[in-house]
Amino acid sequence: MLADLIKKNRSYRRFHESKKITISQLRKWLDNARLGASGRNAQTLKYLIVTSDEIREQLFKNLAWAGYLTNWNGPEKGERPAAYVIMLNDNTLGENYFCDDGIAVQNLLLSAVEAGFGGCIIRAFNNEALRKLFNIPPHLDIIQVIALGKPKEEVQIENMKNGNIKYWRDENEVHHVPKRDLNELIIDEL
Amino acid sequence: MLADLIKKNRSYRRFHESKKITISQLRKWLDNARLGASGRNAQTLKYLIVTSDEIREQLFKNLAWAGYLTNWNGPEKGERPAAYVIMLNDNTLGENYFCDDGIAVQNLLLSAVEAGFGGCIIRAFNNEALRKLFNIPPHLDIIQVIALGKPKEEVQIENMKNGNIKYWRDENEVHHVPKRDLNELIIDEL
Repeated sequence: MLADLIKKNRSYRRFHESKKITISQLRKWLDNARLGASGRNAQTLKYLIVTSDEIREQLFKNLAWAGYLTNWNGPEKGERPAAYVIMLNDNTLGENYFCDDGIAVQNLLLSAVEAGFGGCIIRAFNNEALRKLFNIPPHLDIIQVIALGKPKEEVQIENMKNGNIKYWRDENEVHHVPKRDLNELIIDEL
Repeated sequence: MLADLIKKNRSYRRFHESKKITISQLRKWLDNARLGASGRNAQTLKYLIVTSDEIREQLFKNLAWAGYLTNWNGPEKGERPAAYVIMLNDNTLGENYFCDDGIAVQNLLLSAVEAGFGGCIIRAFNNEALRKLFNIPPHLDIIQVIALGKPKEEVQIENMKNGNIKYWRDENEVHHVPKRDLNELIIDEL
């Protein structure tokens, strides 16, 4: 059931790095991303897939992890993502991609979760370093990096208290994420 | 299977208007939207639900439908959405909502499809008229209007030819949507 997939689709940041994801799996998930709605049907999003050990390592160095966990610099070797998808916007096809990025990444991540994997959307990265590393031409803008792998951590949803949006990790290494109550989100029912 | 839901989740613009959607159903779908990832976990999105006949009619007047179907002004009475969700951004919680809008709307629409309904994201609307109609305070920005109902049209995915992104409706009133090939979207596999 979809609700179960959605609940299971948490932002995972530690993985069983040795559990590989194949290009063929990634292509299947990206085919689901491809079938998401697109503003003006322009379909401006492009993707770069990274699975090889060496390039994953170089990519990893240019990512920032979990802003609220100030004492944590990201996953250790062995717990790093087994694959990455870099989402780009082809600005020759359209500067405005509306909410296509969120739709596509959600299709991708739900697909990964259904297959027993999981991931995390990373928007804090060294843009110039990544452009150089992948020799990305000027007509492609980097939107986000999606880290993927077999999750090696537990993530729990909590009821938000006093408007505190910061997630935290407890003494058992469980990651807790406060969510606003539905009644706070619905401003009216007419 | 998720891939089937994703394929079935097309942009529907004609509905069996008499087939109602309850507030309780909408709340369930919005609870799935609520559980999507959020940039900095800020969760700035808010929702306004519309199901009543009179307000739906007023809302409908302020929406633009299917830009490429130049001879069509939107669904006739009886084929209009049975419900709407207006997605707003609470700018006191954050000006930047990253791709949260796409993630949330995808969870919402996939939930609707799973329940036998469907919808369409509308980003072309009379902003000032809607703000006035719903008396929306300045701290809430309208992001999009999501039209929902029991689909009364067939939508087919086509392979895009010659980069032509325009969807079309054939003589049998079937709606065709060209999609780019996956190989066009993946720029490299490293």
